Amino acid sequence: MARASSSISMGGDEGSSGAREAFEQLKEKLKEISCLEGVASLLSWDQQVYMPPNGVATRGAQQGVIARVAHAHKTSDAIGTALEALSRAEPLHGSLTPAEIASVREAAREYNRTKKKPVELAARAAALEANGVAAWQKARKENDFSIFAPVLQEWIDIAKEETAAVADPGTDVYDYCLDRFERGLTVARLEPLFALLKTPLIALVKQIQAKADTNNDLLSGVELNVDTQMVVARQFAEEIGFDFTSGRFDVSTHPMTIPVGAPFDVRITSRFRETELSSGLLATLHEAGHGLYEQGLDAQARAAGLPASKPPGMGLHESQSLLWEKQVGMSMEFWDHYWPVVQRSFSDSLNPSIAASEYHKLINEVRPGMIRVEADEVSYPLHILLRFEIEKGLLDGSLKVVDIPAIWNQKMEEYLGIVPKNDVEGCLQDIHWSMGLFGYFPTYTLGAVYASMIFLAAEKQIPGLRKQIQDGKFSELREWLRENIHSVGSLYETADELIEQVTGSKLDAKCFLDYLSRKYGALYNLSSPELQATSR
Amino acid sequence: MARASSSISMGGDEGSSGAREAFEQLKEKLKEISCLEGVASLLSWDQQVYMPPNGVATRGAQQGVIARVAHAHKTSDAIGTALEALSRAEPLHGSLTPAEIASVREAAREYNRTKKKPVELAARAAALEANGVAAWQKARKENDFSIFAPVLQEWIDIAKEETAAVADPGTDVYDYCLDRFERGLTVARLEPLFALLKTPLIALVKQIQAKADTNNDLLSGVELNVDTQMVVARQFAEEIGFDFTSGRFDVSTHPMTIPVGAPFDVRITSRFRETELSSGLLATLHEAGHGLYEQGLDAQARAAGLPASKPPGMGLHESQSLLWEKQVGMSMEFWDHYWPVVQRSFSDSLNPSIAASEYHKLINEVRPGMIRVEADEVSYPLHILLRFEIEKGLLDGSLKVVDIPAIWNQKMEEYLGIVPKNDVEGCLQDIHWSMGLFGYFPTYTLGAVYASMIFLAAEKQIPGLRKQIQDGKFSELREWLRENIHSVGSLYETADELIEQVTGSKLDAKCFLDYLSRKYGALYNLSSPELQATSR
Repeated sequence: MARASSSISMGGDEGSSGAREAFEQLKEKLKEISCLEGVASLLSWDQQVYMPPNGVATRGAQQGVIARVAHAHKTSDAIGTALEALSRAEPLHGSLTPAEIASVREAAREYNRTKKKPVELAARAAALEANGVAAWQKARKENDFSIFAPVLQEWIDIAKEETAAVADPGTDVYDYCLDRFERGLTVARLEPLFALLKTPLIALVKQIQAKADTNNDLLSGVELNVDTQMVVARQFAEEIGFDFTSGRFDVSTHPMTIPVGAPFDVRITSRFRETELSSGLLATLHEAGHGLYEQGLDAQARAAGLPASKPPGMGLHESQSLLWEKQVGMSMEFWDHYWPVVQRSFSDSLNPSIAASEYHKLINEVRPGMIRVEADEVSYPLHILLRFEIEKGLLDGSLKVVDIPAIWNQKMEEYLGIVPKNDVEGCLQDIHWSMGLFGYFPTYTLGAVYASMIFLAAEKQIPGLRKQIQDGKFSELREWLRENIHSVGSLYETADELIEQVTGSKLDAKCFLDYLSRKYGALYNLSSPELQATSR
Repeated sequence: MARASSSISMGGDEGSSGAREAFEQLKEKLKEISCLEGVASLLSWDQQVYMPPNGVATRGAQQGVIARVAHAHKTSDAIGTALEALSRAEPLHGSLTPAEIASVREAAREYNRTKKKPVELAARAAALEANGVAAWQKARKENDFSIFAPVLQEWIDIAKEETAAVADPGTDVYDYCLDRFERGLTVARLEPLFALLKTPLIALVKQIQAKADTNNDLLSGVELNVDTQMVVARQFAEEIGFDFTSGRFDVSTHPMTIPVGAPFDVRITSRFRETELSSGLLATLHEAGHGLYEQGLDAQARAAGLPASKPPGMGLHESQSLLWEKQVGMSMEFWDHYWPVVQRSFSDSLNPSIAASEYHKLINEVRPGMIRVEADEVSYPLHILLRFEIEKGLLDGSLKVVDIPAIWNQKMEEYLGIVPKNDVEGCLQDIHWSMGLFGYFPTYTLGAVYASMIFLAAEKQIPGLRKQIQDGKFSELREWLRENIHSVGSLYETADELIEQVTGSKLDAKCFLDYLSRKYGALYNLSSPELQATSR
């Protein structure tokens, strides 16, 4: 733990009352930090949902001030002193509850990271984020990767410098980056996961393509009122249990979930287009899944600002959105219940002869494409694998920035059998790298694997779960998730530990492959030998 | 100026470059403070417009943290040091612009007030505000003034203690209170104003009552769609010039204007009821008038957070809302243009035979009532006079809290000829005192007087102004206000000085009386001798 620069002197031996006292001091500061994070979230939510266009510059200045204030609070001597007193009072088990001890652990982690990060480096990163996004947009506009390349190189340099300054000596740069988004995530954990997924997924995509018979013209040319779409989407969110007395649902350009004051003020958004029914509805289920997680956190601990009440990582957060979007919202049972609802809502525009099973098949169509965010759930992990391999190469020095376009296209051909016609639909498609977010992409696939494991565990523990979904009843599943995952927060140090508690097994690629094989085997009438090939 | 506790040493003789340097340091801090004020405004706006109900407690904690952070910034050594250097560098005229010098003056004023205010007193006031509003609500619910009385006594004590701690020795307590809302406002300035208004207004109200013939059943029983009302109100706001690229218009329980990031992000709200057309439309014009002021501030200076770019007081701010609501929005010319618009918008519910002049007469009906916020513009100042006299008595010790209900009712009978049947419609009707806002009420009447003076000056300087209004053209008036009032900010130390610059005369009760006599004389066919009596 970094030594605080405070001059407050303390006795060398802290008793249990000393630990309690230090914890209460820490708690007071953590609550302030939590409030400032909520304020920053509101500034961001408002900017994306309701702020008038000319407010941009002022909002940037406001965000900047709040970020500086939050940084000062996070690195304050008061926190350093309290953490130091707590470290001297160990073991804490006699004085603090397990949840409190976990909060001390999380607070120390955050304090050390923030304190160790050089101010100059943080300023460079902040400036590069603004310039980086602008350069990325320009590179896309002109379809010219070379405009973006210097930004990427600078982010690589910053990642290396930050790792050297902040992480334990000898820490691998990409491991440090991964850990920022999912505690304890390493290259060593991801490589076997992707190794297990790669060949079966490539094979499954090919098998499906050979049999593809989806009637993807089913809704072609049909225009559906966006306000009505919003009403239906709101009904979905409400019926799976998103609490509107503790949340909002609005429209923004990019769907998102923002915890303005979780668990009592959680805001989700979606977006709707007349010609795209499923996109807006499924994005709503996705965000409502994130929202249910935030609304399900331990209320007392979260309101007190205790960090152990927060989700342990992006992977587990994504598991909750994907569980509701994919495992529930793209299942046949869900549409058995909701397709009639949709048909009634759009009785003036939808062909009444379209069956629920046809719509179910349409939204589960597997078709390799260039764009990650439009990918089906079978090819999606291959998009992530490609990015994982490139990020890893960039950070371990085996890949040069200038070589990205070529390696991207080569891997697209290898994994999905298609080649981008330009970098805009290739290596310039995602905003993440322009913001320096190396290590973020793998959490999407981690989330998908977790979701399949969690849903399987829920099926085992909740009798008749699929029948409940078919009846539009979600309360038992939601409460099970709340009890086993949402309210647990970061009691365990990593999501992996929590997942093992809930499902009885460690991260399990096979569970995910089995789910895909079962679902898409049925949808595409794949014969049994083919299924075995995919899940070997 | 309070001596800053900073240990930074400085040379004794500051040259002009020293003044510039100190000003730049001051500016940096002022910008931060301005950002924090904007953040607090957004938290408040969101709470009243979009926040989910369960967010209340978390929002309170967030507001509390921002208030503490803002207080620390406002009393920071950096500001004290910069202000001290500037005070030693006087005269500043060689180094700084007049607007910059005004900002130093305003910054010093705010710094001294905040710094001198004891922390303990601020904490007591914050606690009393929460408890005070609750006690006021309970007193209203139970129609029992004695529940509210102790809160009022405590606010009186706090006002006295704050004056003793913050103001120059010998400052009158009510003068200090008045000055908080309108710089330089004193009892000595208000007493002659109200003395001039009192007798003529009482007489005018009586004369009108003797002739009252308004057909106030004109819209009785008519229900008008609130969404359509909102559309019409938005059109009004837009056409008088409220800029929606730098602002928003939403619905909230109480109409309000919140500058989230003026002049680029200014938000107004109104509220609509099916059975009350004029209430929502006129409230919108009122708030849009406030909004135009905030949008018209000097953009560069306001974005930089310079305090001299802000309005100099609540009275002048109210003059801008009342100018658009009353002088423009309740004029015959305005309804000549807009009544047909309203009729078209509600063609399914409004009787097409109602003439613009009939609607104009309806909304200008004078009828003494118990409730200030529902009062017409003739009796309104008498409601304020009553409150002014009571506040003055409470703070100079000539009136006891326990005597308020009796004196209230006695003055209502004297001024308006009516007596409240209970304290809920009497001395418990307003929230202001529960929050300790002594000195706020007089700014309403100050605003009304300013508005009549400003509109008269505008009429003299803009040829055909009334014809322009009749044609629905407001840009010349708006630009005139922007140039002469909005963009001037607090360049002058008091609103009075600005008013004299704009209108050529000092605060002029007669101008306001003339306006009322002319307008209501015509509306109610008052004979000429009666008119003379009102404006003597």
